[in-house]
Amino acid sequence: MASSSTLIALLHGPDRRGLVARVAGWIFERGGNILHADQHRDMEKEIFFQRVEWVPSQDDAAAEARAFKAFAVTLGMAVCVASSANRPKGALFVSRADHCFHDLILRWKAGEFAGDFACVISNHPDLADAARGYGLAFHHVPVTARTKAAAEARQLRILRAAGVEFVILARYMQVLSAGFLKKFGRPVINIHHSFLPAFTGGRPYQQAHERGVKLIGATAHYATVVLDDGPIIQQDVVRVTHRHSVDDLIRKGRDLEKLVLAQAVRWHLENRVLVYGKKTVVFD
Amino acid sequence: MASSSTLIALLHGPDRRGLVARVAGWIFERGGNILHADQHRDMEKEIFFQRVEWVPSQDDAAAEARAFKAFAVTLGMAVCVASSANRPKGALFVSRADHCFHDLILRWKAGEFAGDFACVISNHPDLADAARGYGLAFHHVPVTARTKAAAEARQLRILRAAGVEFVILARYMQVLSAGFLKKFGRPVINIHHSFLPAFTGGRPYQQAHERGVKLIGATAHYATVVLDDGPIIQQDVVRVTHRHSVDDLIRKGRDLEKLVLAQAVRWHLENRVLVYGKKTVVFD
Amino acid sequence: MASSSTLIALLHGPDRRGLVARVAGWIFERGGNILHADQHRDMEKEIFFQRVEWVPSQDDAAAEARAFKAFAVTLGMAVCVASSANRPKGALFVSRADHCFHDLILRWKAGEFAGDFACVISNHPDLADAARGYGLAFHHVPVTARTKAAAEARQLRILRAAGVEFVILARYMQVLSAGFLKKFGRPVINIHHSFLPAFTGGRPYQQAHERGVKLIGATAHYATVVLDDGPIIQQDVVRVTHRHSVDDLIRKGRDLEKLVLAQAVRWHLENRVLVYGKKTVVFD
Amino acid sequence: MASSSTLIALLHGPDRRGLVARVAGWIFERGGNILHADQHRDMEKEIFFQRVEWVPSQDDAAAEARAFKAFAVTLGMAVCVASSANRPKGALFVSRADHCFHDLILRWKAGEFAGDFACVISNHPDLADAARGYGLAFHHVPVTARTKAAAEARQLRILRAAGVEFVILARYMQVLSAGFLKKFGRPVINIHHSFLPAFTGGRPYQQAHERGVKLIGATAHYATVVLDDGPIIQQDVVRVTHRHSVDDLIRKGRDLEKLVLAQAVRWHLENRVLVYGKKTVVFD
Repeated sequence: MASSSTLIALLHGPDRRGLVARVAGWIFERGGNILHADQHRDMEKEIFFQRVEWVPSQDDAAAEARAFKAFAVTLGMAVCVASSANRPKGALFVSRADHCFHDLILRWKAGEFAGDFACVISNHPDLADAARGYGLAFHHVPVTARTKAAAEARQLRILRAAGVEFVILARYMQVLSAGFLKKFGRPVINIHHSFLPAFTGGRPYQQAHERGVKLIGATAHYATVVLDDGPIIQQDVVRVTHRHSVDDLIRKGRDLEKLVLAQAVRWHLENRVLVYGKKTVVFD
Repeated sequence: MASSSTLIALLHGPDRRGLVARVAGWIFERGGNILHADQHRDMEKEIFFQRVEWVPSQDDAAAEARAFKAFAVTLGMAVCVASSANRPKGALFVSRADHCFHDLILRWKAGEFAGDFACVISNHPDLADAARGYGLAFHHVPVTARTKAAAEARQLRILRAAGVEFVILARYMQVLSAGFLKKFGRPVINIHHSFLPAFTGGRPYQQAHERGVKLIGATAHYATVVLDDGPIIQQDVVRVTHRHSVDDLIRKGRDLEKLVLAQAVRWHLENRVLVYGKKTVVFD
Repeated sequence: MASSSTLIALLHGPDRRGLVARVAGWIFERGGNILHADQHRDMEKEIFFQRVEWVPSQDDAAAEARAFKAFAVTLGMAVCVASSANRPKGALFVSRADHCFHDLILRWKAGEFAGDFACVISNHPDLADAARGYGLAFHHVPVTARTKAAAEARQLRILRAAGVEFVILARYMQVLSAGFLKKFGRPVINIHHSFLPAFTGGRPYQQAHERGVKLIGATAHYATVVLDDGPIIQQDVVRVTHRHSVDDLIRKGRDLEKLVLAQAVRWHLENRVLVYGKKTVVFD
Repeated sequence: MASSSTLIALLHGPDRRGLVARVAGWIFERGGNILHADQHRDMEKEIFFQRVEWVPSQDDAAAEARAFKAFAVTLGMAVCVASSANRPKGALFVSRADHCFHDLILRWKAGEFAGDFACVISNHPDLADAARGYGLAFHHVPVTARTKAAAEARQLRILRAAGVEFVILARYMQVLSAGFLKKFGRPVINIHHSFLPAFTGGRPYQQAHERGVKLIGATAHYATVVLDDGPIIQQDVVRVTHRHSVDDLIRKGRDLEKLVLAQAVRWHLENRVLVYGKKTVVFD
């Protein structure tokens, strides 16, 4: 099966009897082979969620994907279908911190992601040489309060020219405007250096140190127009004590940020994350 | 649905195309409603595993269970089917340590388990009053090397008389013979106080302290004729340092043992654990 | 040494050169034997913290404790000194939930705490029999908005009559007034069922479920006049997924609450927790 | 204090009354300022362990270090004293796997280590360009069963020529001979990809998969003449399920190996690790 590409559908909609059987039956009747099928029911809201991955029998995967979408609509389901043969192209937004930058690129080169990085955009020139050393185009787009609108317009032109389908904010120290998010219209994954919803906004490690918490965290989430409020994909924490200074928290937090962001990116690219409302269902 | 009992099937056998569809279709066609369906494929050995839980349409759940078993055989699957309406009866085997004993009984009384405890059997009389205080029959069955065969025969009589369907070794400090396991013929869950396969046999905390490990563990597994070698259901660890004496490890280990054993018992009673070879598939 | 009682001093004050040597020298010159000495410096605020535990040479430990206090004042240190021979008496405040109640009492009976429980106070009668079964006095003190002042006055009378030196709010579902805390004037340890400062106030598991977090937490802290804002002693988290309902979070949270509260109580009773500002130094 | 270098002593020997006071007194009387002093007593074996870090009053830190060593001998203590002004030089031994290699070098460049890397030695040429891109000398020293003695002799010449004071086996897939370890005579830190003592030897992830464990681990330890048996510095684990193939374990294990090895190297270079027998005391 390693040589066969698969189709992956993410479905959700009002729960009703027989959905599992009807989806599996549709694929089976057309000669497909289901590799994974994972369901979830929100019992309270009576919503059905499913991720199903299969090897289609026919060569024309695009036609099968279109046919499945039409079928899912008849079940009252919202659906998206991806092919494992398509590797989405992404852009990394960075500032000066380089830990998530190196980590994501090294994982990509090690084959951990079902997608590719097309370019790096930064409001600082610091990582230009490193990006180019990895063979990635680097775009320095300075941002000030006065120039933000123009800078975002330039960022959007770069993303479109490169055919970028997702953005990762790898410790990018700027807030993207609602207008940017709307015009881009594709997933933007951010890493926030706290256990959200605790310590939103700036300097979360300083806030954590002042509050005297015994664990610090990191949260990967989809960026939305409300800062640090988007659907959470992954979180983790690490233990700290009174012995740890803010600088220690920052150092320990770097490892957390790398792991949490990389896990979120991997799941996203494997089409394991389904967003509904301000929450996610992660079929891991 | 809270008022309806469900059927839960655990299947496994040679993988082939269409198994998900055929199982789901069989249930759907008979008017059943699938609540959960979770699959796994061992890609290397080409084995298909499934846990499926559904609300049968008809009142006669026992007949539906029988019919499903016959159907599963036609798919080449080994299968067992349980009804959530049946609460299996279990026995606790204990010695002197009481932490898992209290923990399991309090969780049972709090409604955490899909089964019941029928009696307590111990080679020491220490916990007799506590067991009876919880309303449980207590049987003191002393065991020595010389009397072991007779003691096990007595234990088997007690289990049969009480209709016991599973045994939990809640820090029972005796090894059950191969003969006992065979004659009982039902699941026996043991908690071993190490991260198996490290530190098998006696005094694992002493062994861990001597080796200078930085984490200690606990392992819940089905007992088999080879000591500490049965299929692992759940494991967990906790961090220790050079500051911890063997007594500290024992104290910290008690919390681990309670959590790990309780989780294994909960999964077992919810029919989430499928044994194959010396491994488990846990549909959590 | 097991037979000797020890003195334990917790010191803090402005940092200056030679504090470690002067404290150790004072004890050594009087024939004492230091078992543990643990220091911490807040580099930013230039505060020195120390926990030192020693076996005094003389029989009159009370006199040695007084002398040490006088000495510490000459170093500019705030200090408290406890003797391991004194086992403080505590009260458990509970409502209907019984998991922390059973857990704390069973740990106490297993010898895990360097203190004792004197009585149980509850706004509900549910746990009366269980408390008395453990040999503990049980006081039913109903609380309504209208009767709160009188109820708190009665609680204070009970605490004073029993010589209670610390209170544990073991899932007590009432807020203690500022007046109560001031009049009691002793440590009150609370368990909050979230990873503070996230999800303060009521129904934290419901809040966590709505936000879609991937970890839930529990926090043990000293109660202060600001709700859920006191110095944090211990925190921990456990992983959850979209599959977990609010009821699942409540069940999983019970284990967290037990472990986190018990750890905080153990550290408190071993005089390992030093409060300054709204933070703690925990000498574990 | 950031501008001042410190002295760090690691002491151990037979426990006796007054050691804390005498060490602190010695430093205080000579005008030194203790920043950290951490003690441990092995109660069973009556051994005293201490790490003490101080700013010496005089400019001649080397003379103070010599004087402290002479003093410690009068206390019956084994001792080593390091100056924070000396940054030890290390060598990385690698084969083909590059995750620990990149991780350690990026952490070094980020300033996480109190030491430096001088060169990379490998039995394969694969990482030559990457090493040189980081500005590190790369030595390709092929090893076969027949050429092993000559290869180790060449490795030792390289280490001596570069003044190397410690070696890190960053997934180096060769066993160093007892002769090499003896002739080098300096610390060699290895990362083993299992939770030792489980799964020693080759292919530990394959072994873990076959045993069906629910957690996989990694262990950093000092290399000794007995394979995978040296004093453990750090260990950690991560949860796995039946869904994870051996390749998944390898991928998840990479993150563990990076974190565990980096932590061990950081502690080692900060003189926080004291070896005695086959165990370590880690003053973290």
